This record gives sequence, C-alpha cells and structure tokens, in this order.
Amino acid sequence: MNSDRRNRVKKIVECVSNFSEGRRQPVIDAIANAIGGVPDVRVLDVQSDGDHNRTVVTFVGGPEAVVEGAFQGIATAAQLIDLDHHRGEHPRIGAADVVPLVPVRGVTMEDCVVLARQLGQRVGEELDIPVYLYEEAATRPDRRNLADIRRGEYEGLKEEILTDPDREPDFGPARLGAAGATVIGARPFLIAYNVFLTTEDVDIARRIARSVRHSSGGLRYVKALGLLVKGKAQVSMNLTDFRLTPVHRVVEAIRREAARYGVSVERSELIGLIPQEALLDAAQWYLQLDGFASEQVLEIKLQET
Amino acid sequence: MNSDRRNRVKKIVECVSNFSEGRRQPVIDAIANAIGGVPDVRVLDVQSDGDHNRTVVTFVGGPEAVVEGAFQGIATAAQLIDLDHHRGEHPRIGAADVVPLVPVRGVTMEDCVVLARQLGQRVGEELDIPVYLYEEAATRPDRRNLADIRRGEYEGLKEEILTDPDREPDFGPARLGAAGATVIGARPFLIAYNVFLTTEDVDIARRIARSVRHSSGGLRYVKALGLLVKGKAQVSMNLTDFRLTPVHRVVEAIRREAARYGVSVERSELIGLIPQEALLDAAQWYLQLDGFASEQVLEIKLQET
Repeated sequence: MNSDRRNRVKKIVECVSNFSEGRRQPVIDAIANAIGGVPDVRVLDVQSDGDHNRTVVTFVGGPEAVVEGAFQGIATAAQLIDLDHHRGEHPRIGAADVVPLVPVRGVTMEDCVVLARQLGQRVGEELDIPVYLYEEAATRPDRRNLADIRRGEYEGLKEEILTDPDREPDFGPARLGAAGATVIGARPFLIAYNVFLTTEDVDIARRIARSVRHSSGGLRYVKALGLLVKGKAQVSMNLTDFRLTPVHRVVEAIRREAARYGVSVERSELIGLIPQEALLDAAQWYLQLDGFASEQVLEIKLQET
Repeated sequence: MNSDRRNRVKKIVECVSNFSEGRRQPVIDAIANAIGGVPDVRVLDVQSDGDHNRTVVTFVGGPEAVVEGAFQGIATAAQLIDLDHHRGEHPRIGAADVVPLVPVRGVTMEDCVVLARQLGQRVGEELDIPVYLYEEAATRPDRRNLADIRRGEYEGLKEEILTDPDREPDFGPARLGAAGATVIGARPFLIAYNVFLTTEDVDIARRIARSVRHSSGGLRYVKALGLLVKGKAQVSMNLTDFRLTPVHRVVEAIRREAARYGVSVERSELIGLIPQEALLDAAQWYLQLDGFASEQVLEIKLQET
C-alpha cells in the first residue's frame, strides 16, 4: 500500500484492553461504556472470564479516538478496581492490566508506537499510575515481553518498584497504588487459532505444539500449547505476526508433524477476528495464485474512491 | 445474509456489457462515457480487443443506476455501430451484443431477472431493437444459452427473424436494423481463471480441460479449454457459479488429473475480478476451518453499521 493509497483510507487502530475484573458486571459495564462513549470509537467485543476475573474489551477507531478511549477505560478501571482485593487465575499487575495498540488500516506500527507513548505519558501524569511500555513500544529489550514485566504480579511489584531500579516505570510514579501499574504498547494483530487432530492423545498435540512454536525451536511468530478439548487433541495457538508467519504455513507444518504420528488434521477453528489479508494470503498460497493484486477482489475495488 | 442485514447494505449490481467495436477509440469512449455519466454508476473496466473488434465495459452501481447505465450504453452503441460494416473474430448479433446483470451485494438473482426484463422492455420499446432474454432471465429453455441465441450471428438472424417464429424476440420488433439485436439477462458472477501446468504439451492441457468442464462430463459450472500460453500448457477457464462449483474444487481436480500425466500445477492466474467470498471459501476449505462466520473477518465486521 503506497502513501497515496493510505491517505485515502480512513485510519483504523485496534485496542485489545485487558482489565482485572471479570465478575462484577456493573464494573465491567462502566469500563466498556467509558470506552464506547468516546466519539468515533466502536467497541467490537467485551469478553469476561470469571475464573480469570478478567475482561478483554476490544475496540477500534481513528488513532486519536482510540487513545482517548483507552485513557477513559484505564481511568474508570483505576477508580473501580482495588488490586489489594482482586483474586483470579490470570497473572496481572494492574486494574487496567495490558493495553496494546494494533495497526489495522492506514497506520504503521511506528504510528502505534508513538500513540502508545503518548497514552503512557498521559496515564502516568494525569492518573498517577506507573506505566511500562512493552512489545514494539518497549524502551528496553527486557521489557518487550509482557511476562517479564508482569513477573511477581501486583503483589511482588508493589515491593520491588520501591527498591529495584530495573523496575522503574517508563512513565508515572515509582510506587503502586490500589490500581497497580499498566502495561501499554504496540503489537501486530494477534490471531487465536486452534487445530484439532484425529486423536484423543493429548500427548501428540503437546509434541506438535513444541515442534511448531517459537519458544522451543519452531516458527517465529507462533505460541502453541497441546490441550484436550471436547475429547480431541488440540494444538491451541496465538499467531503473533501473520504477515511473517502466515496461517497456511502453520497449518501445513502441523499437518506434516501429525502425519509423523499417524494422525491427521480434523478441522481448525478461529477464535475472534482475523484480518482479511490473512485469509486472502492462504487462498493465494493454496491456489498457487501468482500475480494477484488485492484490487482484484471486487469488494476491495469497490471501496476505492 | 438475512433480510435485515441486506437492508442495511448498499445494493450493488454489476453489468458486464459487450459491444461490437474494439478498434475505433472515439466510439469506445462515447459508449463508456454514456454509461459512466449516469449518477451512481462506476465503470470498473473497459477492455477492447482489436481482433475480436469488441469491447467489454464492466460497471457497478445501485439497481436503478445500472439499468439506466446499460440503457444509455445500448442507445449510444446503436447510434454509432453499423453491424452491416462490422467484422471481427468474435460471434455477435448486435451493436450492444450481450448485457448480463450480476447480483453483487444486497440483491438476489430474482431481483436481477426483474431488472433485466425491465431493461429489455425499455430497449425494445424506446430504441426499437429486438431483445432476447437469456440465462436466468430466459423466458424459454432454448434461450438460456447465449450460443443458441447467437447462432448464425447478425447476418443469419437478419433473415431468420422475419420468418422463423422460434426467433421472435422477447421485446422489440421482429426485424433487424443496423444495430442488430441485443441479448439481455441475469447470471452469477463469472470468474476467469487459468491454471498453468509444468509442461509444454498442450495436449495434456486439452485432456484436463475435457475432464473438468461441464460440456464433456466434468464439473457443472466450469467452461474450459486447453491452450499453449507463453510456452506452457494452460487450462483456461470460466467458472460460472463459484458458490456451487468453488475454485478450490476445480484446482484440486486439475491437480489430480495432471498427476495422471506426470505433471503438476505450476501456478494459477486470475483475469479481472473475483468476489471476496470465493477466496475466503478457498481459504476455509484448505485450512479445514469449521464454524467460521464472515463477521470474523475484521474488515467485514467494521463495515457493519
């Protein structure tokens, strides 16, 4: 997409904001309404988990609108959630725990890094909440990974932030209130994708997960676990950069590994949303379609001005 | 798509109009401008072929706008093209030769049949041109196929229409002027799709074409020819209903037949436009993606109001 084209399309950023409340519906509603009340923001999904005691609010809009929506969500969560009384299975360090900005249309990753830093500065200064920048927006290599920042959770960070200079936040005070700290950043679109195998042997799913995931030597932008779901072995994955590690390459790698154990791919499933480009890329690859331009898709052609 | 959803989207009809002039640029421009000058009509493509002496103007818009655009194109062609002085390789019976309406969004095939008949009546009455309704809009089974209507071309029809009751038009006079007759109808979106083989032996492409095409016992909505293109054997196809005979089924059938001759699919190519649904269907099929809803595509979700 050249810059001329980019200027003509409406810019869209996605924010997948994670809040440490999954049980009290009025609190969940207040956060979602604070976000959705910002003009030009559209809330796509609000997903709460009682066991995790956590809610994910996914919303989109223009760059400025999404930053404002995120700020309003963080401010509301800070008012209504007290981490000293929060329990849940999922690790967390803040009322508003993780707030990644995702480039969707007409904006670059670099644009989202700038937006994440603007948001972080505002949260630190106006809400007096410590902010750590992560992933593409990270200011230090040891803060790229969310797990490293969240180490020790709220309870551990509360002590360490006072004494350990490595835990000094990027913005805001070096002390935790009841709203904890917030991790803000920029990252590519994340696809949640699961592949079911024709076996009940979860051990095969675990071995395949190990073979395809980055952490144990596999494909760079794949996180994977082997699970038993509805009586079938499942390779459960997050695809963290579908442009560099495309869906079809992951599926075909799993298919090959499965054959090694004498089983097949039964079916796959997509959790939540997928960018159109990821599916068009898969179609092109399997159909061996060369010289294809996205403007050959009738609906994309019709969207041009 | 339910009717509620359908009411919310802007209705779009496509018209792939064929005119018997591919050499005189001022005539081609006059026709394209007459069509494109109608408010709410958007001309997507104007493709002329000098050998065929024929131009295809592809345009889209709301149902009424597209009917008006088609009428203006037919009227302009009738003024500027004299079939008594037209020569070209491609069979034809009229200045405006074939005018199919294609449902693209928010309209059904039945809607397009009604539109085709309205257009046909107007062309017959106001322009005094004989009109034959074809494909889904046909009033008789022997007029579904374009080739049957076009038998004998302009020169043959000029005689037969005067004497043969089977050749009486659906609208307009039972005599041909210099503008000839026009075939109007409704049909599904047509995908022009070619598959190259890893061989120079055109005979293999011809055998495969025979095996996959409807006319010789193959798949119902496939027309296919074996050709030699750029030194490679090519199976050249029109896929006339991608919902009932999907692209991936055709490609996999060709792949299997090719293996029989010890060759492979080298690559495929798409000529012109393809509906998004056709590529999403292929991606789902190859990825074995079950339980998928088109609203899971981020861009489709964002288009919803």
